[in-house]
Amino acid sequence: MQVRSDATSVLKGGAMSQLPQLQDAYLLISSGRIQDYGPMAHLPEGIQFKHHIPAQGRFVFPSFIDSHTHLVFAAPREEEFVMKIKGATYAEIAAKGGGILNSARKLQQLSEDELFERTLPRVREIIRTGTGAVEIKSGYGLTTKDELKMLRVARRIGRETPLTVKTTFLGAHAVPNGYSKSDYIDLIIKDMIPAVAEEKLADYIDVFCEEGFFTPEETERIVEEGKRFGLKPRLHANQLARSGGVQAGVKTGALTVDHLENIGEEEIELLQKSNTLPVALPGAAFFLRLPQAPGRKMIDAGLPLVLASDYNPGSSPSGNMPLIIALACIQMRITPEEAINAATLNAACALELQHDLGSITRGKVANLFITTPMPSVAYLPYAFGSSLVETVMLNGKIIADEQPAPKK
Amino acid sequence: MQVRSDATSVLKGGAMSQLPQLQDAYLLISSGRIQDYGPMAHLPEGIQFKHHIPAQGRFVFPSFIDSHTHLVFAAPREEEFVMKIKGATYAEIAAKGGGILNSARKLQQLSEDELFERTLPRVREIIRTGTGAVEIKSGYGLTTKDELKMLRVARRIGRETPLTVKTTFLGAHAVPNGYSKSDYIDLIIKDMIPAVAEEKLADYIDVFCEEGFFTPEETERIVEEGKRFGLKPRLHANQLARSGGVQAGVKTGALTVDHLENIGEEEIELLQKSNTLPVALPGAAFFLRLPQAPGRKMIDAGLPLVLASDYNPGSSPSGNMPLIIALACIQMRITPEEAINAATLNAACALELQHDLGSITRGKVANLFITTPMPSVAYLPYAFGSSLVETVMLNGKIIADEQPAPKK
Repeated sequence: MQVRSDATSVLKGGAMSQLPQLQDAYLLISSGRIQDYGPMAHLPEGIQFKHHIPAQGRFVFPSFIDSHTHLVFAAPREEEFVMKIKGATYAEIAAKGGGILNSARKLQQLSEDELFERTLPRVREIIRTGTGAVEIKSGYGLTTKDELKMLRVARRIGRETPLTVKTTFLGAHAVPNGYSKSDYIDLIIKDMIPAVAEEKLADYIDVFCEEGFFTPEETERIVEEGKRFGLKPRLHANQLARSGGVQAGVKTGALTVDHLENIGEEEIELLQKSNTLPVALPGAAFFLRLPQAPGRKMIDAGLPLVLASDYNPGSSPSGNMPLIIALACIQMRITPEEAINAATLNAACALELQHDLGSITRGKVANLFITTPMPSVAYLPYAFGSSLVETVMLNGKIIADEQPAPKK
Repeated sequence: MQVRSDATSVLKGGAMSQLPQLQDAYLLISSGRIQDYGPMAHLPEGIQFKHHIPAQGRFVFPSFIDSHTHLVFAAPREEEFVMKIKGATYAEIAAKGGGILNSARKLQQLSEDELFERTLPRVREIIRTGTGAVEIKSGYGLTTKDELKMLRVARRIGRETPLTVKTTFLGAHAVPNGYSKSDYIDLIIKDMIPAVAEEKLADYIDVFCEEGFFTPEETERIVEEGKRFGLKPRLHANQLARSGGVQAGVKTGALTVDHLENIGEEEIELLQKSNTLPVALPGAAFFLRLPQAPGRKMIDAGLPLVLASDYNPGSSPSGNMPLIIALACIQMRITPEEAINAATLNAACALELQHDLGSITRGKVANLFITTPMPSVAYLPYAFGSSLVETVMLNGKIIADEQPAPKK
């Protein structure tokens, strides 16, 4: 069982390789929180258990925290996946109505209830693979009404399902048809941000700071306006090119810069001197056949790497965090311990949830999962195609349980 | 529903992109075989159903056929996975007792019953992800006694579980400690092959024809001896180098040559003129960070590509065929239809099972699965981290069913 007696700050560099574990241990949950743990030999006597979950041969992990997703969307885009296999470029797909604007068109046609219903199966799926908290971005609305609709659905997921949800306003995801970029930025600043803030629909603001989308200067302008309304920045940066996204993030005090497939020494040095957390998204690089972000290099440079799924219908159609961790281990050459810390405690810090989530620590919320019987922590990414999450507990309640019934 | 009215030969090149489908269709199973199918509007009247499985919004696939696995093994080797992440070379891992000899040492210590019990969870797992027939190799025994033990376990899986099993004798997997290569080859030829044939434990013979293992000349010698005893060849070829493996396979009339990460025009031309089937193993290349076999190029050259998992504890610890198909689509740029044909009908031909398995065809065995609701066939590889196999039928019987109970 992974436990940490003190776990309210990010793990940087070498500290990420430490994953403290108790073997043959007990864990007491009370009122939805972790009350105590220790070796079985020290289990206090006389405790009256309401429920008792045996876990022989199994591992207890803190639930994953997925700090970058686009979980609320209308429909998958597998037809674009096939176009890309056949060699279509991003521009060709866009010309055929594909890409972000494709998702926006479909989402705009749905009611808030329909959008919620379409998102629920994905919520159930990520819970089933071990995720307990998730960040959800807007950005497939691209009108004030539809951006608000997306964020309301994201908030509703946080209220009506066991997932802990943080929301991010990403109006600046793409420029919708019929707008010049500067007119659309005006709409974001004058209309969308105040409306989002008025309804308290977002915790953060994000901008797709990439070549062909929003420049670092435009990003700074949008983000500074968000900050005036209490929205902290987190940025899409350096996915497609060395676009200055990391610089814009550090300059505006962003909590995170996400993607980072295209960074060099300069960006790493900037991050070393800042509190901005680097978030790598291995599912997107894998699915788009791009080189992975230099996760190994960032950890070796002492940075506090974070891993997230980027679950979205265009570039990373999976929120399966064990598989994301396997991709990171295989394609970035980071160790299982580093990857698990990047997807739990460091990810909690990336969503400012580290006081309640991200580790099995006395007093934190009981968000955890029990694996199937397995020989070691490293088995989780090694067995990259296996479903190893057997029992899921969120907020101290069993949500899913596939442990076989005891033989009679 | 995928159906084929005539399906007893491999699909080559362009023919692999065709995946005939019936929408809104019925499928009748009787005595474990596919009796009939057609559009619902043509469902014959007055049929008395014993069972009836609704499949609205779902897809019916023929079960996958995994034509290259090392499914029978003693224990995982995730510690070597971590050593490789940290930069250890194959030679360094071997020097620390890792690799094939590691698996052999562990397997030699187990009884036949123990080995069977350790394999069963993997059997259940691959059934759960849609596999209905599997090839299983020996090669972790490396003594006559232990090679026979492995093959007996593989045969027992075919008798005692719903999987259809073909077995392959792979004594020439590595040279065990204490033997010169020529002495070990003598043991294979004089002792192992006759013993395997005597007990009818293998359908095929395989050799690890790779640099540092067995040369093409040694491969031919072993394989020709196997053929004298009725064992048809299938070879490990061209994984680590352009070793002449494909040439040895074509020359000896091998049914398949497997791996093919390192082939060029010469090998492709040889395969074009032969009946030897090329088998690509995307899980191994992914896990070992090698370039994938040129699947796209082979299909474009008119070859009948086959996909298999290579499930084994060292280089491909997964038998999840939907994920293998996703890896092929993403990393080889083959289409979902091509990948599915490569893992069903063409794979059936690779195991000489095409008259009974590999497609939904009148008269074939009812080995199939029903997916969760999904929008298209392409969704299967697109949603690369999702578990989409909902109901599994093997030999006309429901083996696993996760379809939610109807709402009351």
